[in-house]
Amino acid sequence: MCGTGRSRRDSKQSKLTRMQLTVVKIGGNIIDDITKLAFFLKNFSALPGHKILVHGGGKIATDLGKKLGLEPNYVNGRRVTDEETLSLVTMVYGGLINKNIVADLQTHNCNAIGLTGADGNFLPAVKRPVKEVDYGFVGDINSANINSELLHNLILLGLVPVFAPLTHDEQGGMLNTNADTIAQELAKAMAKHMTVQLIYCFEKRGVLSDPDDDNSVIGSISQQDMDGLKKNNIVSGGMLPKLENALTAISQGVEKVFIGHADDLQVIISGKAGTCIR
Amino acid sequence: MCGTGRSRRDSKQSKLTRMQLTVVKIGGNIIDDITKLAFFLKNFSALPGHKILVHGGGKIATDLGKKLGLEPNYVNGRRVTDEETLSLVTMVYGGLINKNIVADLQTHNCNAIGLTGADGNFLPAVKRPVKEVDYGFVGDINSANINSELLHNLILLGLVPVFAPLTHDEQGGMLNTNADTIAQELAKAMAKHMTVQLIYCFEKRGVLSDPDDDNSVIGSISQQDMDGLKKNNIVSGGMLPKLENALTAISQGVEKVFIGHADDLQVIISGKAGTCIR
Repeated sequence: MCGTGRSRRDSKQSKLTRMQLTVVKIGGNIIDDITKLAFFLKNFSALPGHKILVHGGGKIATDLGKKLGLEPNYVNGRRVTDEETLSLVTMVYGGLINKNIVADLQTHNCNAIGLTGADGNFLPAVKRPVKEVDYGFVGDINSANINSELLHNLILLGLVPVFAPLTHDEQGGMLNTNADTIAQELAKAMAKHMTVQLIYCFEKRGVLSDPDDDNSVIGSISQQDMDGLKKNNIVSGGMLPKLENALTAISQGVEKVFIGHADDLQVIISGKAGTCIR
Repeated sequence: MCGTGRSRRDSKQSKLTRMQLTVVKIGGNIIDDITKLAFFLKNFSALPGHKILVHGGGKIATDLGKKLGLEPNYVNGRRVTDEETLSLVTMVYGGLINKNIVADLQTHNCNAIGLTGADGNFLPAVKRPVKEVDYGFVGDINSANINSELLHNLILLGLVPVFAPLTHDEQGGMLNTNADTIAQELAKAMAKHMTVQLIYCFEKRGVLSDPDDDNSVIGSISQQDMDGLKKNNIVSGGMLPKLENALTAISQGVEKVFIGHADDLQVIISGKAGTCIR
């Protein structure tokens, strides 16, 4: 079980001097389901200690775009962000979704503050260079550039940052950035100041050894386990980059990374559900 | 000229112990003009000391609403905010406009943070009770309920709050609130912690004694002057509540209120343009 083998950093002493921070990412599938979202937000607000929420986009932007005559353009499974799409996601992710989440969290005495990467210059990004594909107004971020000290101070005021999947280019332009990436880079950057655990919430109970069996959750994965999992094709597709990113985060100071179902949030942090990457 | 007659509160001593805060409100007409907005934001970011920006809505929401088949519904010159309109303004005011302003201010080394009243629970509001007219999801706020201490701490971190004209009902719902009102209530609430000046920027050079003559700016208006101005019909229409609100703000601790043209921001605070209410 994750957390039983303690590293030096996770000693009693560092636990006393460094505050805990939980960074949670929720995906679009929860955003799109008003009942699931409400349940999740209630559980999120009950998490003890300091926390950050990073949310994805969901289908609302796509649906609204269609009403406005914008057809989504995908290349290699990734959406191309043209100028009109950028306006659309800035509205929907940064306004509608983000502010409704904040208003909901406030009902649970969780003093949320909705942010994008432009706010506080927290997430300065670089517009993705055009190689084979021009992804448009998409921002790449690096934990080293995150304004983590200011964010730390904001958290110490008792605020709970809620990040929309948006960054900015420091030249006046907003950029569209993957929420998984934001969560990961935030966790790495905040590990300079706090003891950070990162939780990816999605629609499965964790990393499954059998994709068709929801009870086949792999409880714990280490760097050493990865080779075997890849070799035996147990982990593949979209889960592979998720796990590799998680292991990178661990190697860069994040204490624990969990992957699990949004409904299980409370149980995941106790180590009794989901997959723990260490 | 405003500020020559010093009150006790504005003594040398209180100036040393209390920090200055400038609250600036810009209206929709500037939001709608990309060149004017850019010019204004450059000037705003150059204002010395701590500051807050409150922005109005502009026509973008109405235009987008029309594209989506929403027809704006006005009663007594005020827009009724139904559920669909609330989603629209949450997107456009809280997302598109607010975040683009923040991203622009960041290019001028102004560390802006875009907020609504739900964020940080800064502006808890009450949904306007239905009397003759049901204005829908419109929020009334009161400076006494504003979370001014937390906002003060946010400002002391070096952040520049940028408020969209949105509040929340503390029950999970966003509400639409007039930007003039937000600016005024914020100024009054912040006067508990800082020496506050409030600037309303609009499309005229100040309060005019002759509405057809832009050079007829009344430099200074006191409570004593108001009776004469009303009696002689020099001030009427939409300007009347603006001035009365300004005088109320002064009576509740705000040091100065200016009304002037957005282009004149730098000159207004030096007291050489606009109308100063004291």
